[in-house]
Amino acid sequence: MTRDEITAEIVAARLLKGLTWQELADAIDKPVVWTVAALLGQHPVPAECGKVIVDMLGLDESAIPILAAVPMRGGLPTAVPTDPTIYRFYEALQVYGGAVKELIHEQFGDGIMSAINFSLDVQRKPHPAGDRVVVTFDGKFLPYDWTAAEN
Amino acid sequence: MTRDEITAEIVAARLLKGLTWQELADAIDKPVVWTVAALLGQHPVPAECGKVIVDMLGLDESAIPILAAVPMRGGLPTAVPTDPTIYRFYEALQVYGGAVKELIHEQFGDGIMSAINFSLDVQRKPHPAGDRVVVTFDGKFLPYDWTAAEN
Amino acid sequence: MTRDEITAEIVAARLLKGLTWQELADAIDKPVVWTVAALLGQHPVPAECGKVIVDMLGLDESAIPILAAVPMRGGLPTAVPTDPTIYRFYEALQVYGGAVKELIHEQFGDGIMSAINFSLDVQRKPHPAGDRVVVTFDGKFLPYDWTAAEN
Amino acid sequence: MTRDEITAEIVAARLLKGLTWQELADAIDKPVVWTVAALLGQHPVPAECGKVIVDMLGLDESAIPILAAVPMRGGLPTAVPTDPTIYRFYEALQVYGGAVKELIHEQFGDGIMSAINFSLDVQRKPHPAGDRVVVTFDGKFLPYDWTAAEN
Amino acid sequence: MTRDEITAEIVAARLLKGLTWQELADAIDKPVVWTVAALLGQHPVPAECGKVIVDMLGLDESAIPILAAVPMRGGLPTAVPTDPTIYRFYEALQVYGGAVKELIHEQFGDGIMSAINFSLDVQRKPHPAGDRVVVTFDGKFLPYDWTAAEN
Amino acid sequence: MTRDEITAEIVAARLLKGLTWQELADAIDKPVVWTVAALLGQHPVPAECGKVIVDMLGLDESAIPILAAVPMRGGLPTAVPTDPTIYRFYEALQVYGGAVKELIHEQFGDGIMSAINFSLDVQRKPHPAGDRVVVTFDGKFLPYDWTAAEN
Amino acid sequence: MTRDEITAEIVAARLLKGLTWQELADAIDKPVVWTVAALLGQHPVPAECGKVIVDMLGLDESAIPILAAVPMRGGLPTAVPTDPTIYRFYEALQVYGGAVKELIHEQFGDGIMSAINFSLDVQRKPHPAGDRVVVTFDGKFLPYDWTAAEN
Amino acid sequence: MTRDEITAEIVAARLLKGLTWQELADAIDKPVVWTVAALLGQHPVPAECGKVIVDMLGLDESAIPILAAVPMRGGLPTAVPTDPTIYRFYEALQVYGGAVKELIHEQFGDGIMSAINFSLDVQRKPHPAGDRVVVTFDGKFLPYDWTAAEN
Amino acid sequence: MTRDEITAEIVAARLLKGLTWQELADAIDKPVVWTVAALLGQHPVPAECGKVIVDMLGLDESAIPILAAVPMRGGLPTAVPTDPTIYRFYEALQVYGGAVKELIHEQFGDGIMSAINFSLDVQRKPHPAGDRVVVTFDGKFLPYDWTAAEN
Amino acid sequence: MTRDEITAEIVAARLLKGLTWQELADAIDKPVVWTVAALLGQHPVPAECGKVIVDMLGLDESAIPILAAVPMRGGLPTAVPTDPTIYRFYEALQVYGGAVKELIHEQFGDGIMSAINFSLDVQRKPHPAGDRVVVTFDGKFLPYDWTAAEN
Repeated sequence: MTRDEITAEIVAARLLKGLTWQELADAIDKPVVWTVAALLGQHPVPAECGKVIVDMLGLDESAIPILAAVPMRGGLPTAVPTDPTIYRFYEALQVYGGAVKELIHEQFGDGIMSAINFSLDVQRKPHPAGDRVVVTFDGKFLPYDWTAAEN
Repeated sequence: MTRDEITAEIVAARLLKGLTWQELADAIDKPVVWTVAALLGQHPVPAECGKVIVDMLGLDESAIPILAAVPMRGGLPTAVPTDPTIYRFYEALQVYGGAVKELIHEQFGDGIMSAINFSLDVQRKPHPAGDRVVVTFDGKFLPYDWTAAEN
Repeated sequence: MTRDEITAEIVAARLLKGLTWQELADAIDKPVVWTVAALLGQHPVPAECGKVIVDMLGLDESAIPILAAVPMRGGLPTAVPTDPTIYRFYEALQVYGGAVKELIHEQFGDGIMSAINFSLDVQRKPHPAGDRVVVTFDGKFLPYDWTAAEN
Repeated sequence: MTRDEITAEIVAARLLKGLTWQELADAIDKPVVWTVAALLGQHPVPAECGKVIVDMLGLDESAIPILAAVPMRGGLPTAVPTDPTIYRFYEALQVYGGAVKELIHEQFGDGIMSAINFSLDVQRKPHPAGDRVVVTFDGKFLPYDWTAAEN
Repeated sequence: MTRDEITAEIVAARLLKGLTWQELADAIDKPVVWTVAALLGQHPVPAECGKVIVDMLGLDESAIPILAAVPMRGGLPTAVPTDPTIYRFYEALQVYGGAVKELIHEQFGDGIMSAINFSLDVQRKPHPAGDRVVVTFDGKFLPYDWTAAEN
Repeated sequence: MTRDEITAEIVAARLLKGLTWQELADAIDKPVVWTVAALLGQHPVPAECGKVIVDMLGLDESAIPILAAVPMRGGLPTAVPTDPTIYRFYEALQVYGGAVKELIHEQFGDGIMSAINFSLDVQRKPHPAGDRVVVTFDGKFLPYDWTAAEN
Repeated sequence: MTRDEITAEIVAARLLKGLTWQELADAIDKPVVWTVAALLGQHPVPAECGKVIVDMLGLDESAIPILAAVPMRGGLPTAVPTDPTIYRFYEALQVYGGAVKELIHEQFGDGIMSAINFSLDVQRKPHPAGDRVVVTFDGKFLPYDWTAAEN
Repeated sequence: MTRDEITAEIVAARLLKGLTWQELADAIDKPVVWTVAALLGQHPVPAECGKVIVDMLGLDESAIPILAAVPMRGGLPTAVPTDPTIYRFYEALQVYGGAVKELIHEQFGDGIMSAINFSLDVQRKPHPAGDRVVVTFDGKFLPYDWTAAEN
Repeated sequence: MTRDEITAEIVAARLLKGLTWQELADAIDKPVVWTVAALLGQHPVPAECGKVIVDMLGLDESAIPILAAVPMRGGLPTAVPTDPTIYRFYEALQVYGGAVKELIHEQFGDGIMSAINFSLDVQRKPHPAGDRVVVTFDGKFLPYDWTAAEN
Repeated sequence: MTRDEITAEIVAARLLKGLTWQELADAIDKPVVWTVAALLGQHPVPAECGKVIVDMLGLDESAIPILAAVPMRGGLPTAVPTDPTIYRFYEALQVYGGAVKELIHEQFGDGIMSAINFSLDVQRKPHPAGDRVVVTFDGKFLPYDWTAAEN
């Protein structure tokens, strides 16, 4: 049983059980974005959380150690996403990626936003002209820093 | 003179003049992310703003109507970005894109975050473990809606 | 059972039962283009419609909640379609895409045709020199609009 | 002087002269979508029309025979378009292409919509919830027909 | 059972039964190139022909309606073919494609050779320096013709 | 001056002079398909022919030895052609390539049609339902033959 | 059972039986490079040889006619090979391909080395600085020759 | 002046001067395959050889140090070569690459043919059925060897 | 049973048994990087080691000779890696690859670092600002050397 | 003048002046790998260093502010490098990338080696069997850490 096969089982079992992602996140007491990413195969799931998930979804116990291992990450089936909901973020990167780069450099100097010391949040915010999806990418600034291990 | 050639001139002239993007944005009284994106060739620049930019950067007046036309958008030189500062956003999409999709659907139903009725913000936020780059993607929720023009 | 496997079953079962797409659309009282797209895995199928489809085609009941979930969209097996019937639309995009973009901007200003607040229609129209396939892409105009959620 | 270079000159000269595509189409008495596509390098421009265009835009006369030749068609810079206004049509093809294929076959039998005996129309149609972009792909149905030249 | 699975069964069963493609074509009274293309999954096989094929090759009857449906066409596993026998045609297109285009335009004007109102023939022709493979692409000329459905 | 630059000059000069490809072919007494392919950069042009071409089109004499060298062949700007006139041949290869392969093997055994000992012909043939483009690929059959140089 | 499945069985069975490729080649009395290529799915295996192979490796008899059919050739899983042993040949083509082309033309005139009337040899040759892998590509020279079938 | 520009000048100047590659190789006393590869930009050209080449071809002296630098290697314009003369080697790799790998391992054990400690030879060899192109890839065998620098 | 299937079994069995890679390396007395690479399908595993692994992980004995064969190497699922941990090395190659090339040439002359006579080491090294991952690529320098087998 | 044009000038001027990379690094008192990467366009060059470089190489002063800006990084002309010296690192990543990932996780837990807080070193190390290229990738370990900016 590979991690990909477990992911496919989780996706189907959640729908058949009628559970929301939020309910699964609450059950393991983790942030919901992290939880969904992890259950879609992008993060290791600590064994104690894996136990809860396996029980709630009726999976085999042998999935627990495989869920607990660090997975091979990268969840999009094509280099350019085709699903419209995901594509819009890629489009924003095409249109605004250069500007974001320039402004990170103008505000912080040379460096990057970490995608590892990082969190991501999805919020619904009201607006008179229609509610808005507000997605926050929040990562530690890492300055380019030429450092070597000490001998 | 194509829009691409004007973009290259803007990039070089800004550095030679020692102007910040913020100064250019202030001069035309527009949000800074929008301004940088526009000057990098991703948005039309209204003629009155174009006039200001052309004067500040010492470009030819004939650039103004070309800057004012809607450009062919899409600013990344490769389908998968190679610049590390931009790549981290692509990586976040690889790791969290599936989760974002699931949560937009769980919170809003079937639909997308608009990348057109949209704004993007880059902020520096303090944190005891190091300042953070906080980039907000903020787009109107558009539900899938099967509508046709009226006859 | 994944959504892809259910799609494959629907495709085969419809042919074996000798049902038209129109008959399936009528049975669930939905527009026929929407129905075919949904049954090919591009839209969620509401549970009450899924029940009808599952009964007509003799599928397992467990398919209903999976059909009702928002799918990962994007139905072409290659980035450039190879099937001639589909390719002609891609070809039209290659030849007329630039012109459509220019005219949307000339008629509406900067913005796009929504593919979400959208409907599509396939019609057979008579013509002395041979009947014509008339496919209408009909989407709400979305002007580029730099808006942010209210705080 | 290649056709691509002439196209680039047309694009810039039209903006500098402040002419609309509709004005250029009216001047040569051709449909506007056809005119824009042709001037963007996708159709040959008959010499008498080329003469008008060259005069209006102030191009060199030597462009006329090159405009009159059948060009190498295919106007998108990448296989998957990155410009959002054009991308939405590609996205619609990803989501509805399979359905369009099925319905052409259900309504007409095996065959295709011609992209050669073809016209395309861009219309602005009013709607209470916002005006709509209505783009019609209208091509002769061509049935698969196994015919050979006569000996 | 998908069309691809039926194709794989046909390929294997024909070899195990020791039947030539010509024998299969004769049995259903169709041109042999058409027959092979159809049995390799590129054309719908009319039910009465499908019945004959299924009987000759010992396939399941349920394959008949699936064979009779219009398939998703496009039979090469990679965009550039790797099989040497097929590659030579791609190579000829690389070397002579531009010339064929120019001469179609010089002889017929602007337009294309139809690949739908089309037949293809493979012949063995004697030659003192070695027999020759003569493959004829024969399609109706379709002039570019800007026509719309009548209202 | 590279071969590509000479090709671009030939393409423009032929149009400005108003010469047909047939006239150029007649002037150098070569088959017309071969001539067009060669002048588009796909074959070496013998110096005595190059002299005639250079004179007719008003090119520089220094082009003659470069035209006489064997060029780097391969004339399509993308792996999958986007020009509709050329694409139809690629499409025919997608739909009938597998069938052509099978029939070459059934008629000749294992081997290929040479694309080197080869000619290609473009003909206009009348047909009651509309004239036809008939393109003949004619290459020597080359059987797979495991031969080595003699020592 | 497809040819690919038979290839996978041959690969595993040879290792489990502990047979060398040379032993298999000797058993069917064929050159060893040809034999390995054929058993890896790149050449048809004559039925009398197929019988021997099937017996030695303990495969099912039904594999014999499938082995005897001309396969769809092309054995590398990616367009650019990733296996280092194979990659070095691709690298040599990157570095020396242009030179080989120039010298074939200088020594033979315009034409190619056939890959069909062809043999390939792998030899171990001693050298004081370490034994050498000597791989010989040996193909008939085919001059570009514009020949057509006789009428 | 970049190395690519110097390569383009060498290619044109050699043809205009009417020099063979062999004559250039003789003038610098190097193997001819090496010479052509080097002059096509794949090897550094020692300054004393560069002096000779620059004089023979009438290039600028400033090319000498640039020719003497190690170039960025990799001479094919596309990942899969389109020129037929070069393609045949790629095709041989597709068909025989797996077999060559197996036999290198059977004859030498685990390892590769070096493409660095390497030479390549192009020979014309007579054969009753037509002269043959014999290209020898000759590289030192490098066994996989897990060695580290000494501390 | 293919090597890929055995790799998948090893990956799952190691997690279910709760063994570290270091324990597996110790059990077969091999360097740990080599061991992990080999068990992930990148090196042949000598039969005596394969016996140990098969016993520890509870695999079938028939895996031993397949593990002992030289595998088809190349372990990344996409040409550009998507997993962040692996991607950083690709990114370093994008940013520093040109510099590494220049310095190898400046320090050693023209040639390469062997990836065959090679070892790789992963170390954790302390640093006041956080521990560091130190990965050493250590390969024999191979100078470009034009050598041929002796006759 | 773009950064790419400045890079090309630096590459040529260094060779014409006969300066080593080490000499340039010493002149600006920076590590040599960093210096080469920066001068090849991968890092901003502080203005005081840029002044030195511009003087030593005889470039225009206007290059200084452009060199001082953060560049668009990513220095390889193709996604998979074709230059052999660079390719070996890509190959090592293909063969050992999975193992490095596993061992980083086994030694440090879930996370990555930073390519930003990072240094890279190229060393020549002696070895009885031939000197070795030792390249050290040395980056801070970054554990996956779900942190958000404080409000």
